[in-house]
Amino acid sequence: MNIPKGYRFAAARAAFKYEGKLDLGAIVSDTPAVAAGVFTTNKFQAAPVLQCKEMLADGRKISAIMGNSGQANACTGEEGRANCRETLNLAARALGVPADEILPASTGVIGAQFNMAKWEAVMPSLAESLGDDPELTAKAIMTTDTVHKLAEASFELKGGEVRLIGMCKGAGMISPNMATMLSFIACDADVSAEAWQTMLSDCVNLTINRVTVDGDMSTNDCVLALSNGRSGVAIESEDDYILLRKHLLSVLEELAYKIVMDAEGGTKVAFIEVSGAKTDADAELVARAVGNSPLVKTALFGSDPNWGRIICAAGYSGANFRAEDLVLKIGGVLVFRNGTPEPGDMDDLLAPIMAKRDIVIHLDVGDGPGSTMLLASDLTKEYISINADYRS
Amino acid sequence: MNIPKGYRFAAARAAFKYEGKLDLGAIVSDTPAVAAGVFTTNKFQAAPVLQCKEMLADGRKISAIMGNSGQANACTGEEGRANCRETLNLAARALGVPADEILPASTGVIGAQFNMAKWEAVMPSLAESLGDDPELTAKAIMTTDTVHKLAEASFELKGGEVRLIGMCKGAGMISPNMATMLSFIACDADVSAEAWQTMLSDCVNLTINRVTVDGDMSTNDCVLALSNGRSGVAIESEDDYILLRKHLLSVLEELAYKIVMDAEGGTKVAFIEVSGAKTDADAELVARAVGNSPLVKTALFGSDPNWGRIICAAGYSGANFRAEDLVLKIGGVLVFRNGTPEPGDMDDLLAPIMAKRDIVIHLDVGDGPGSTMLLASDLTKEYISINADYRS
Repeated sequence: MNIPKGYRFAAARAAFKYEGKLDLGAIVSDTPAVAAGVFTTNKFQAAPVLQCKEMLADGRKISAIMGNSGQANACTGEEGRANCRETLNLAARALGVPADEILPASTGVIGAQFNMAKWEAVMPSLAESLGDDPELTAKAIMTTDTVHKLAEASFELKGGEVRLIGMCKGAGMISPNMATMLSFIACDADVSAEAWQTMLSDCVNLTINRVTVDGDMSTNDCVLALSNGRSGVAIESEDDYILLRKHLLSVLEELAYKIVMDAEGGTKVAFIEVSGAKTDADAELVARAVGNSPLVKTALFGSDPNWGRIICAAGYSGANFRAEDLVLKIGGVLVFRNGTPEPGDMDDLLAPIMAKRDIVIHLDVGDGPGSTMLLASDLTKEYISINADYRS
Repeated sequence: MNIPKGYRFAAARAAFKYEGKLDLGAIVSDTPAVAAGVFTTNKFQAAPVLQCKEMLADGRKISAIMGNSGQANACTGEEGRANCRETLNLAARALGVPADEILPASTGVIGAQFNMAKWEAVMPSLAESLGDDPELTAKAIMTTDTVHKLAEASFELKGGEVRLIGMCKGAGMISPNMATMLSFIACDADVSAEAWQTMLSDCVNLTINRVTVDGDMSTNDCVLALSNGRSGVAIESEDDYILLRKHLLSVLEELAYKIVMDAEGGTKVAFIEVSGAKTDADAELVARAVGNSPLVKTALFGSDPNWGRIICAAGYSGANFRAEDLVLKIGGVLVFRNGTPEPGDMDDLLAPIMAKRDIVIHLDVGDGPGSTMLLASDLTKEYISINADYRS
């Protein structure tokens, strides 16, 4: 990979939950970096989420991100907050950066308290592992993911090359805003904190906030992004800004697709496009209802062109549109309009489309300006197995 | 069963979808009956739903209900409406009642048009089957139900005995308002149309509108209720009204429980109680989020006391409450309060509770007057099998 300058990566085995799996990772910037974050809107926010929000509120620079899998440190009260701060002290000593410049992130089982002895014991090997391989860090934050997820981008400005990499973990408890999901971005541009936060929020909203696996929004979701300026390339003009934003967007788009592609037990990716709605919010209601419908998702899994379930979900979405205006296309094939199915053997036409991995479902619901796009996974027996047995 | 006076029941095999299964049923009242109905709020309403609403709007008396399984006659446009009316003409000739006194109901695959030749062919055997056995009619409306669902009640007034029976089909596409679900009630009280409709709407709202299997609300949901006065017992005083309402409620409660107990692939029934909310609507948001969460539902299936998922769902429900006020009890055991898990080995305490079929989950979210109760099924591999292969 084309690694941005001034970053090192670490990963270690703490055995927080399972033996023999990397479960603690870190990204260290040799130069304190401008930092931005986007967080879950769940009312119950995990200790590391609260910690990050507090730290980012004062605009300080950040030298490291540390993420663990296996334990979420959510719904753990004051003890959880204190444990979170103590892990930063331990990491500060091991990694040689100030504790108040380390952003924490956790994912895993909700409600259990950290085993602090394990945190203390793992720190030397975390520090020793520091190197130039982001893949191991991406692996350390995996829970039920079957593959680690990385994306990269780079571009030239007159001052030189700017590089970005992103990593994330996804799998389950994904949606309706963001995913159960930790996502870390490292960039070496010299950009202002305000501009970096604005473009991160925008890009997350267009990508990771538009995926749904199971409609569950976790207590721990966060996207953390650093930019350390080590490329020596300053983002100054409007054009520079647009170019950096474009590449940040492409990194997040790739991560979002990878999350849905590797959804727990998932075998399909549905691109649910809604247009013609009165407002974007109405379009969103339709897309979420279709993308979260267990009946639509099981039909996707079964490659069953059972389009009535899509119409049905749009009908109970609560969106403001007229039933007779809805036009449904699947994979470009016109299926339903004017309240009536198109004539012909739709099953024959749709069977090869439904058999594919990526399926485009387009709902036009009127002549309004509102639109959206949502990536949705299917719902499979494997999802049930994973989640019925997750803790055992 | 204690059958209300003046009703006969019919069932026949039309082979609308499968061979060898009863798929057309009827309830005929020898005396035109006061009728009431409650219908899906889905924007796409099936032809029979539109037909019933039109017929009930003018307060006419009704002589029969006819229901078929296998085909929903939903999303079928004008042709579907015309076909629906034609089935009433066919039934009128066969059953000897006026076509404009027959309420139709359909359930099954959305989008396909009726095969009218099959409707015509089946009518003689439907008429021949007329008798006093409601069980066969209850079987005829089953789709993926594994058992037919009947409930009965009776009570004495000074004028004599009043009898009610109810039947329904449930299984999948259940919620958020009503269920994919046809439910027919027959009663022999002499009651006014207004009182009958009011008590039906109230009772449905307290029972069948409070179950969720998969969060999908169908295009065909309806509860149709007849009361033909043949007991000779008039409902006149406030006390009479309260007594009839109480027994109607008990019939609907039993049907609602049976729907969740026989949810597609279901193995558990969760009683999700929410109290202390600012409003009933807030309580409802919490209960629906918990009851529809795939992660909560898979934990139920796995008998896994993974209570963090319940808190998490409450947290993203959108309900207005303070996180620190939430108190969670499962099967009476205090699990979480003040933002902190209770001390002790919760898994040990909860394991025997989670192993049961019926599980009570109580969330108290403050000191407000809002409360609700919701019956929710679990989510299982069998649900996926049923719905991925439903049409094949």
